[in-house]
Amino acid sequence: MYTVTVRDHIMIAHSLRGEVFGPAQKLHGATYVVDAEFRRADLDVNGIVVDIGLATTALHDVLAGLNYRNLDEDPSLAGNTTTEVLARVIFDRVAAAIRAGRLGADAANIESLRVTLNESHVASAGYEGRLK
Amino acid sequence: MYTVTVRDHIMIAHSLRGEVFGPAQKLHGATYVVDAEFRRADLDVNGIVVDIGLATTALHDVLAGLNYRNLDEDPSLAGNTTTEVLARVIFDRVAAAIRAGRLGADAANIESLRVTLNESHVASAGYEGRLK
Amino acid sequence: MYTVTVRDHIMIAHSLRGEVFGPAQKLHGATYVVDAEFRRADLDVNGIVVDIGLATTALHDVLAGLNYRNLDEDPSLAGNTTTEVLARVIFDRVAAAIRAGRLGADAANIESLRVTLNESHVASAGYEGRLK
Amino acid sequence: MYTVTVRDHIMIAHSLRGEVFGPAQKLHGATYVVDAEFRRADLDVNGIVVDIGLATTALHDVLAGLNYRNLDEDPSLAGNTTTEVLARVIFDRVAAAIRAGRLGADAANIESLRVTLNESHVASAGYEGRLK
Amino acid sequence: MYTVTVRDHIMIAHSLRGEVFGPAQKLHGATYVVDAEFRRADLDVNGIVVDIGLATTALHDVLAGLNYRNLDEDPSLAGNTTTEVLARVIFDRVAAAIRAGRLGADAANIESLRVTLNESHVASAGYEGRLK
Amino acid sequence: MYTVTVRDHIMIAHSLRGEVFGPAQKLHGATYVVDAEFRRADLDVNGIVVDIGLATTALHDVLAGLNYRNLDEDPSLAGNTTTEVLARVIFDRVAAAIRAGRLGADAANIESLRVTLNESHVASAGYEGRLK
Repeated sequence: MYTVTVRDHIMIAHSLRGEVFGPAQKLHGATYVVDAEFRRADLDVNGIVVDIGLATTALHDVLAGLNYRNLDEDPSLAGNTTTEVLARVIFDRVAAAIRAGRLGADAANIESLRVTLNESHVASAGYEGRLK
Repeated sequence: MYTVTVRDHIMIAHSLRGEVFGPAQKLHGATYVVDAEFRRADLDVNGIVVDIGLATTALHDVLAGLNYRNLDEDPSLAGNTTTEVLARVIFDRVAAAIRAGRLGADAANIESLRVTLNESHVASAGYEGRLK
Repeated sequence: MYTVTVRDHIMIAHSLRGEVFGPAQKLHGATYVVDAEFRRADLDVNGIVVDIGLATTALHDVLAGLNYRNLDEDPSLAGNTTTEVLARVIFDRVAAAIRAGRLGADAANIESLRVTLNESHVASAGYEGRLK
Repeated sequence: MYTVTVRDHIMIAHSLRGEVFGPAQKLHGATYVVDAEFRRADLDVNGIVVDIGLATTALHDVLAGLNYRNLDEDPSLAGNTTTEVLARVIFDRVAAAIRAGRLGADAANIESLRVTLNESHVASAGYEGRLK
Repeated sequence: MYTVTVRDHIMIAHSLRGEVFGPAQKLHGATYVVDAEFRRADLDVNGIVVDIGLATTALHDVLAGLNYRNLDEDPSLAGNTTTEVLARVIFDRVAAAIRAGRLGADAANIESLRVTLNESHVASAGYEGRLK
Repeated sequence: MYTVTVRDHIMIAHSLRGEVFGPAQKLHGATYVVDAEFRRADLDVNGIVVDIGLATTALHDVLAGLNYRNLDEDPSLAGNTTTEVLARVIFDRVAAAIRAGRLGADAANIESLRVTLNESHVASAGYEGRLK
């Protein structure tokens, strides 16, 4: 299995509902340094998993839809925007970009995707799943 | 698959028996920066893999049982305390904490756990396994 | 010159006023991974710059006053809470903790302090100054 | 599953053929910080995945065959030397070293290997596969 | 003293003349992860050291003049392009951008600049100097 | 001012005397990831601060004198081997290597040296001083 990973980041505000979140129930924020790992069994004719320029742009575009926002007011996000939930949201949106052809036609051969959100030097969360 | 990872560290002394260990047969020591990655297929009702506060406390408690010690004198540890063996010891103790309910009742849904011990900027070891 | 550095972090929301801030004028947030470096010419009788336990606690206490908050609503903070300004606020509060003896009597010999706030994998800001 | 990872690096020049590579079609270069992760289900009698000294030497020897070179002129490399392709080349050569016994007789029990090439603070690529 | 640091990177090929460079006398290459630290005693009216957007763009523009090239063929570079020399080249070009007003009028108050080139996980070089 | 930094590490056991050290009074250990930063105003005729090969070897040789040891039994070390004290010991030994010509004749022009010991992901200590 071959992999390619690109990194970008967002800076957002939000609050979380539920006693389990303690002080994070108040409005606060986070920098998420986001890694998107693309995986496939074989390389394309150029010897790559994905056009890294398109992958970087696609991740950046997905993150631009979340960046510099109070996520509590984002109508596209329902329920708690935990790091796990945001990892899934970003996964789904990058997957949609792949299906829409924005990472190139050959990106249809990407088999799985792993999105990791590093929220501090001591904590991260992620979501990974198959794309086909 | 969703993941959450928390990080903590220990500083221990030990020696290793066997010619393969060369100078590490002498009493020396290590800082292990420890990552515990919790994995499950679905999130709980709060949108989380695990209560990160409880996970952090559980990891810290497990590490407190090893920290600031000469592991050669720890009766709970048999044989060589290699980085691999310590990863397994920490895995087993965190798994026991989960089974004992110390990470919350819903942590019973955690499917697998990966423990990584970073021992320097050029070496690490780990153990991962299923919890159910 | 001897140095000791300890690290902790905060997760805050805020907005910034001024066209220069572009999209950061909207309410958003950040994780700041904070390094506090303590500096002095000579070590104390124990061979240390500062009691690292007290230094860690003092930094944590200072950060607790900012953590999990919307800094726009913090009456102790006037004007823009840029990363630079927050570095200075944390510097001043850690310096006050030193003067109040909370890092031990010998910490009066600390000559200077450098506070760095890492806000992402590509940006940081800091403030450093003399303490005596 | 137990894992051990060792790190080393190479500094090479190369160019890539194909419009997808944009400016990287010109002769340029890269530092690759290379992680080799060795995986097996059970530890050997010493409590290790692999003799870390031999593993480090084997990785270093494999990398020495690529280091400080213009890869465009390396007759052992056909086609584009993308990060993905180089990850596979290093994987194959480390695997060959294992089969040749250069990581010790017990290394025959290593089940899989993951090679990751970190090419900057924002991009990496890798190859992983079974060894038996 | 306040500081702001931004990070970017380049990927170049080059060779070095002189026996001291050993195998690096051959054509090879490097990724340089570049940190530019801007320093000044007081903040501007917005509470910043420099417009971080302009600083990031200025660093990127300076690096674009070096990126994806064989530096041996760059007529603007005389002599060995060691990491130290490149740090100075980038320092001079960022300093020129400041003087030309490309980081904003208030950037004239930046007192000093430190440029660090991280060339691997085990080596870096830099140049720092006053700007006025 | 130009700088070059090289990195290596040691793994040692020790104990610390004094109530201030709490549980670290017991025999324990540490990995120290050691950075040595060499500084001088002008480059030599090759365009370098120091022969990085000789600097790496000199640091490695100094660290070999401490590595894989119980520092409590090292007759060359008096008093507490705190991270600060060890930074000074390594500083003095690297400085002696420079004076002995082991980093090359031109290394006599190195003006200052900074040694940093990273002991975990949350703590480090260092010593810096002039060499002439």
